[in-house]
Amino acid sequence: MSEKRGYSLLPTTASGDEAQVNSAITGPSTTPSGRLLRNLLKVFKLSVLVAVLVFIFFPSGDHKSFPLHERHGPHGDKKEPKYTFETHMQSDVNALVTGSLESSIVWDRLAEMTDTYGSRIAGSEALEKSIDWIVEKVKGDGLSVTTEEVIVDVWNRNEESLYFLSPTRGAVKLHVLGLGFSAPTPDPINGLEAEIVVVTSKAEVDELGAAGVLKGRIVLYNKPFESYNADVIFRTLGAIWAQEHGAVAVLVRSIGPLSLQSTHTGNSAAAKIPAASVSIEDAQLLSRVYRRHQQDPEQFPDWPKVRLAMNAKTALKSKVSRNIIVELKGRETPEEVIAIGGHIDSWDVGVGAVDDGAGCFIAWEALRQLSKLDRPPRRTVRAVFWTSEENGSPGGRVYAANHPETNTTRHVFAFESDNGVFDPYGIKFTAGRRSQEEEEETKFNSYDFMTAAGEHFLGSRKDLSYAGAGKVVLPGGGGADIGPLCKQGVACAHFTPADPFPLAYSTSPYYIKSSKLTTEGHRGRHGRHHRHHHDDDDSIDPPRRPVDSGYFYYHHTEADSMGAFTPDQVKNSAAVMAIWTYIAAESQVEL
Amino acid sequence: MSEKRGYSLLPTTASGDEAQVNSAITGPSTTPSGRLLRNLLKVFKLSVLVAVLVFIFFPSGDHKSFPLHERHGPHGDKKEPKYTFETHMQSDVNALVTGSLESSIVWDRLAEMTDTYGSRIAGSEALEKSIDWIVEKVKGDGLSVTTEEVIVDVWNRNEESLYFLSPTRGAVKLHVLGLGFSAPTPDPINGLEAEIVVVTSKAEVDELGAAGVLKGRIVLYNKPFESYNADVIFRTLGAIWAQEHGAVAVLVRSIGPLSLQSTHTGNSAAAKIPAASVSIEDAQLLSRVYRRHQQDPEQFPDWPKVRLAMNAKTALKSKVSRNIIVELKGRETPEEVIAIGGHIDSWDVGVGAVDDGAGCFIAWEALRQLSKLDRPPRRTVRAVFWTSEENGSPGGRVYAANHPETNTTRHVFAFESDNGVFDPYGIKFTAGRRSQEEEEETKFNSYDFMTAAGEHFLGSRKDLSYAGAGKVVLPGGGGADIGPLCKQGVACAHFTPADPFPLAYSTSPYYIKSSKLTTEGHRGRHGRHHRHHHDDDDSIDPPRRPVDSGYFYYHHTEADSMGAFTPDQVKNSAAVMAIWTYIAAESQVEL
Repeated sequence: MSEKRGYSLLPTTASGDEAQVNSAITGPSTTPSGRLLRNLLKVFKLSVLVAVLVFIFFPSGDHKSFPLHERHGPHGDKKEPKYTFETHMQSDVNALVTGSLESSIVWDRLAEMTDTYGSRIAGSEALEKSIDWIVEKVKGDGLSVTTEEVIVDVWNRNEESLYFLSPTRGAVKLHVLGLGFSAPTPDPINGLEAEIVVVTSKAEVDELGAAGVLKGRIVLYNKPFESYNADVIFRTLGAIWAQEHGAVAVLVRSIGPLSLQSTHTGNSAAAKIPAASVSIEDAQLLSRVYRRHQQDPEQFPDWPKVRLAMNAKTALKSKVSRNIIVELKGRETPEEVIAIGGHIDSWDVGVGAVDDGAGCFIAWEALRQLSKLDRPPRRTVRAVFWTSEENGSPGGRVYAANHPETNTTRHVFAFESDNGVFDPYGIKFTAGRRSQEEEEETKFNSYDFMTAAGEHFLGSRKDLSYAGAGKVVLPGGGGADIGPLCKQGVACAHFTPADPFPLAYSTSPYYIKSSKLTTEGHRGRHGRHHRHHHDDDDSIDPPRRPVDSGYFYYHHTEADSMGAFTPDQVKNSAAVMAIWTYIAAESQVEL
Repeated sequence: MSEKRGYSLLPTTASGDEAQVNSAITGPSTTPSGRLLRNLLKVFKLSVLVAVLVFIFFPSGDHKSFPLHERHGPHGDKKEPKYTFETHMQSDVNALVTGSLESSIVWDRLAEMTDTYGSRIAGSEALEKSIDWIVEKVKGDGLSVTTEEVIVDVWNRNEESLYFLSPTRGAVKLHVLGLGFSAPTPDPINGLEAEIVVVTSKAEVDELGAAGVLKGRIVLYNKPFESYNADVIFRTLGAIWAQEHGAVAVLVRSIGPLSLQSTHTGNSAAAKIPAASVSIEDAQLLSRVYRRHQQDPEQFPDWPKVRLAMNAKTALKSKVSRNIIVELKGRETPEEVIAIGGHIDSWDVGVGAVDDGAGCFIAWEALRQLSKLDRPPRRTVRAVFWTSEENGSPGGRVYAANHPETNTTRHVFAFESDNGVFDPYGIKFTAGRRSQEEEEETKFNSYDFMTAAGEHFLGSRKDLSYAGAGKVVLPGGGGADIGPLCKQGVACAHFTPADPFPLAYSTSPYYIKSSKLTTEGHRGRHGRHHRHHHDDDDSIDPPRRPVDSGYFYYHHTEADSMGAFTPDQVKNSAAVMAIWTYIAAESQVEL
């Protein structure tokens, strides 16, 4: 297990003794502060211990225990920690699933909002109208809702174009999309004409720059897609690297595994020279023409030129947007807050259905379903629609600043969804600081607890798209909007969908093959991949993996639309988000 | 076997007797005409029979026989026809493969041509320049080349646009692509504004039309993708259907399994009203808005409207284009001609790399490789670049008319590639009329012969992308450009790539799942799909299937570019095309 941890911890002593069962059930101190409270809690823990022991040894017919692992008797010798969950939790979880699956309200609402208002870039009227629309709907749900103001940076794309000035074809219109916060071209209407230089690394930029080759030219970064994390640096820093050598603009091959002339925008660091993405196909076209000229200048005498025009405008801190906060008060410890959500803003292309409308809306639905339980969870749950994540995440910072830890209130768990909503896969999770610090004393490991909870509440379900959908816990919880909370030591998780394209490799012929699969269980003993399917399903069901390249078919493109996922995927994901939120809100442990 | 045949035939009597071996090797009459020639051939057949029997029973160390099926002795009781192939054929096939794989010349040439001239719609300068460029390169190859004139219909797209006139968002620019031979809008610049009506079938058109609902409105066909063949009728006839009920234009949801805001053009029957494709995402957007209005007109009072402007112009039979014919004279029966090829024209979007640049270029390469053998094949082989396939296929008709069967020359096999070039899978094949008519007498079945040849020459190869790549023979040979030859009774085949997207179903969430796989061997005994991989390959190798939905990621779109396939795929496909062409050109059988 320990290699799956994203942080360093003392090794877990695994045993089946009573103290361990005790700490596993009640966890370390969850009271906000104070020695007195902690002592009171110890008394409470003791009573829970007694109750649990009674429950384990004298189960009644009306109550079911939910062992997580096959037990070898109550004092079995299995060397794994055992976590049990209160009986009522299972019926609440079932109610959450039933509620989530009974209608397509989330899909319908997201479709209506995006159809009605379109994309929601920070600073736009469409974003504020969408926020107003959500607030009204939330009120209609009978939920408590507030907003808080956030000052946002504004970037307007305006007009832009890119032409390959072909000596044989004339001006060939290419597929271009300016990068967020790019400067305009010096002449924003007529643009600039320059020769291109094609590179695939910063080292090449520096080498060609030192040789004076980049001066007055446009650098085209044409690195084949490896992964978003590996390649995004060309988008964020490419212009900075190139301007140091006198380049007049940069073009960045769009970051994605498959392209149908798709262009991908996204933030780039503020540079003096303009920066735009081009489709993979167009990057390849320009690269081929460039290579022919470099390799055989007699037959191909023309150094390839393009004309780039961008009329983008940046206005830092020029508008006010809002975070939306929907709250369901906790029934026992309302001062303990769980924040779940996503960002309500989007890029200006597509309609931000994937990034991150669906992320927000499944959190909203999770809260709505929680509110329909017979009684609310022990802790307070907030669904937060953070604003302006794409433009530097001030929404997340403002939220953390507005809701600091005090003697009477604090965040105990933050749960973001900003990696798309497809079939559910699980969560990425990082334990909170308190839990980690107290682990030696409490013998409670919240990562293992969450893994056990996933197995317990989701492992044997088959109604959330595939058997065990949503149950996996992976290391690395966090996210752009909850980042400020995570930094304060709040336990953090990220909703993780299964990749929408079920192959372990991209379908693009340009994708670099990797023999790695990112999840366990998909390799045979000889290290080969095996495909398997569920016995009760006659259709092909390839192994699932956490979202990876499939999200980047849509991310920051015109194709970020309702077409990227199905109503069922949204329903199932809302149910899974509700379950994880409920686990955190109801369990008396410190995550 | 018989259920795989696309045509009706007497059942094959399968036996291993000598007469069968004889007929299998030499086949029915292959001389162009005349009783005398046939009798001469019978004498020749007899000598070949003697030679073969000598060869089978007294093989020398220097010669190898190539049994197709495991033999149970020369008079074995296995009930399958046995076809053997002359020894020299294997070394020629090996030379074809070696030659095809040694360079990326096909990819490089296709990339250079498409980069240099762009798309090649009939009537365009770019098409004629591309033809000139090919002719020069073919001459450089030392091959014999001619062209023949073809009068073509011309359609120019000019400007076009489509806006959703949203009451909340203003004019939202949609993803539109006019259909080939569409009429312009009556005002070609300002276009027309009209309400939309969404349908998914002709029955709905007729029903709504009879109710007067379509009058003055725009019909949007929003049928979810099932298959190209099932859905293309909306593109070809949708405007005709709608205009009869007074509709002012039609929009057709693009025909494809996955969309990244992709628009697909293609021919539509000439109608009085304009016809354009829209992306799947935009068709869904309009459908949702339409449905909301229909279902809840109080909350959504506006019947959705769009503004469509098209400035297309049609000029029938207004230009001259050319077929290109590259010829390699046969060494023994030059009067017997094999025509292989694809179409050199394309749509005006993308660059026609997939449809059908690569198809032509692998035929060209196949001929070039055949020309490099120690001696040319027995029959004459022509690589033909038919022109204007997209605009009604006059190139194929002119070719057939210009090269009719005479007493001294005739086509014996026509082999087209117009379904994309990805990894090779095999061919679709239909026997010629003579072969079919003579089957009872000759006991020779050319479909079985081709199947045996595929197994023999390709079945155990592992160097053409995957084991057995290219070997499969499926029923249904033919194609738009060779159609006139096929109708005359010439044996016909179509090059069939493996689907570029290896799943048996589309990756699109909108795709309608089907449990059918189109090829044998992928189902276990319980009818479930099994995935398997080759033992010598550590990467996932899903079962292959003949090209299906994957081709329609690119077909008739902006994404029809060199990005759709890899240099290796082109090399391997050229090799496979060369092998099948060689089998037809060298074997003395009548296909």
